Amino acid sequence: MADLSTSPPLAPSSIRDAYEKIKSYIHKTPFITSRSLNAIASSSDPSIFLSDDPPPFDSAESTVDDAPPRFRLYFKCENFQKIGAFKARGAFHAVTRLIEELGVEEVRRRGVVTHSSGNHAQALALAASTFSIPAYIVMPSISTTSKIAGTRLYTSNVIFSGSTSEEREAVVADVINEKGAILVPPYDHPDIILGQGTVGLEMEEQLRELVAPGGDKGSPSFDAVITPIGGGGLLGGVATFFSSQPETFVFGAEPSFQGADDARRGLQQNKRIEHVKSLTIADGLRTPVGLINWTIVSDKTKVEGLYAVSEEEIKKAMRLVFERLKLVVEPSGCVPLAVVLFNREFRDMVAERQRKQGGKGSWDVGVVFSGGNTTMKAIATLFGEVGGEGEREAGKIGVDGTKKAEDVAG
Amino acid sequence: MADLSTSPPLAPSSIRDAYEKIKSYIHKTPFITSRSLNAIASSSDPSIFLSDDPPPFDSAESTVDDAPPRFRLYFKCENFQKIGAFKARGAFHAVTRLIEELGVEEVRRRGVVTHSSGNHAQALALAASTFSIPAYIVMPSISTTSKIAGTRLYTSNVIFSGSTSEEREAVVADVINEKGAILVPPYDHPDIILGQGTVGLEMEEQLRELVAPGGDKGSPSFDAVITPIGGGGLLGGVATFFSSQPETFVFGAEPSFQGADDARRGLQQNKRIEHVKSLTIADGLRTPVGLINWTIVSDKTKVEGLYAVSEEEIKKAMRLVFERLKLVVEPSGCVPLAVVLFNREFRDMVAERQRKQGGKGSWDVGVVFSGGNTTMKAIATLFGEVGGEGEREAGKIGVDGTKKAEDVAG
Repeated sequence: MADLSTSPPLAPSSIRDAYEKIKSYIHKTPFITSRSLNAIASSSDPSIFLSDDPPPFDSAESTVDDAPPRFRLYFKCENFQKIGAFKARGAFHAVTRLIEELGVEEVRRRGVVTHSSGNHAQALALAASTFSIPAYIVMPSISTTSKIAGTRLYTSNVIFSGSTSEEREAVVADVINEKGAILVPPYDHPDIILGQGTVGLEMEEQLRELVAPGGDKGSPSFDAVITPIGGGGLLGGVATFFSSQPETFVFGAEPSFQGADDARRGLQQNKRIEHVKSLTIADGLRTPVGLINWTIVSDKTKVEGLYAVSEEEIKKAMRLVFERLKLVVEPSGCVPLAVVLFNREFRDMVAERQRKQGGKGSWDVGVVFSGGNTTMKAIATLFGEVGGEGEREAGKIGVDGTKKAEDVAG
Repeated sequence: MADLSTSPPLAPSSIRDAYEKIKSYIHKTPFITSRSLNAIASSSDPSIFLSDDPPPFDSAESTVDDAPPRFRLYFKCENFQKIGAFKARGAFHAVTRLIEELGVEEVRRRGVVTHSSGNHAQALALAASTFSIPAYIVMPSISTTSKIAGTRLYTSNVIFSGSTSEEREAVVADVINEKGAILVPPYDHPDIILGQGTVGLEMEEQLRELVAPGGDKGSPSFDAVITPIGGGGLLGGVATFFSSQPETFVFGAEPSFQGADDARRGLQQNKRIEHVKSLTIADGLRTPVGLINWTIVSDKTKVEGLYAVSEEEIKKAMRLVFERLKLVVEPSGCVPLAVVLFNREFRDMVAERQRKQGGKGSWDVGVVFSGGNTTMKAIATLFGEVGGEGEREAGKIGVDGTKKAEDVAG
């Protein structure tokens, strides 16, 4: 990885620079709104819209007595990003920074390496192949075939390892020794964080394009932006981008299942939690927050708060995204919407602030759909009769129907 | 319904007029492309991309010996249309024509009526409610709760009937007698057909916006457009729109399961097939083609050919749409893509024509994703371990897990 000492500072201007470097390689992903989701989010009980007899949307807003929070939601569709997730941004930024620093010939000679069975593996393989750089991806041999196949679409150098961190890191060390390959970690590095922060930059641009100035407010800005947090690269980058805009609160969303809400719990204990072992369906969020990201996430001037949701709430949000928006978003990507719709603490906080602001108007909230890499088989397992939470909790089956699963970064 | 004798002629200019009437009420839906889908469609065996070990995309195009057809695909996303399907177009056109002809007060006094448990029910209810016109929707009492709930979002006048055509038509007749309500049929009427034809109009506009002139061809035009065919309103409308453009072939796509390919079989027998009883997963395409639509579909100068695909092929196309494009498209909406990817006869025909054209270049093919109204429950049933075709074939369970299903129009 590019030497930490040469990394640009974690500041909005560095994210603007990062965007100039990567924008020709990534998609400017769609930014969409939905009147029905706004009505659902602004009703006193969003769950009833998933019942067998949902009320008409227009009646929903008028039947409120307890003054629910009011939202206008803006969805940032990183499920349509290259390789199906925001991870392409960080990977392209890390690789272009390496090329700047070492020259493309040197990087091509040495190659890049990472260990991941998730979206970061595909993202790094794609970014490297774009510049004809070899990418060595270390994956546990028990990874599901669809993830191995997905990575092999972009690199022929998939190397298998055992499944513990020690085993994986030993294989990575071998590749570094043998090939001189450069490690590109999945989230805990400034170049990665700044790359992911370009999600926030595009959202701000797209809000300005969408909302004519001179409406409710002078110049359009988000009241809040909410992203998932696993390792923390995405939330860290987005919070960095909005750090100079005090009118925009940035929130993080985590699954609570089996303690996967390590960042939220860490904040309460005032100490980063280093180990997580959760089989949450939000499989991109099973990792503990990284060291550098912890410095951002625990900085109240950058991240206003963290909220966690249950597996059932994630599934309900996913159903609404699927059935109302007609979009495929992976469970991890649905966690922020689940917070907006179902987290009582979050909703009460917004309603309370809206009362203090005089009870008029809705909050403009940017919600990041971080990725869309799931399979029909995984969906059928999640939403079918078999394979419920009881069985997963007992460790019998994994999210994708495999017999085992574990916390693999990125 | 507006009197047939006053309907505009089935011609491209009438579709332009229809578009002016309805465009402020409908969405101009996205028109998208995908390099990976182009590579898959242009490979000699698209199915291998659904295997556990798919090849890299860039190798796919280079390993061809038997000269597969070559495609650039353009997807028209009517799954993002209001009520989740193209049916909103025809319904808004029918209702605005009624208002023109009778005056809005008269239409409000009488109301509109239809029998449907599908997308037409919701479309008519939405169009009517937009103009404060009562909409009476007759649905079989055995309809699934999600369909009843979907219709109730837009009208409180859902009226239940028995499930045979005679029983449903008797209830419709009662509503017409009692209320003087005006029947708006789901597909077999010029006003409906012209409304659906606006899909073709938008696609042509969007191709021009997307493809810079002076590329392979002078002014960009489709080599082919392919839509699903059930009752035939969509295919009839789109074929009418392109009828003055002989360079663009229009094709129809049907499911073959239990004889749902009535239009294709009818063409072979030179006679419209009047009855279909199929439980195909493409539940929007279970109806036989309508009388007026038959005159278009059987006109070789308008529709170049019809092709049918199996249930497995529809499911494979649906998986690619879901996993690669991250879009939710209902089974009926995936039938045209299934033809492009898996119908041997269609692919050989295209490859043969491409050889005759000198073997250079790809066909620009517009593929209509007609709707996205499915549920997580239906997906889990279709793609889970239980509820396979054997059981459905035996009539034990329906597509959505209900015990019974039947051919209900629109």
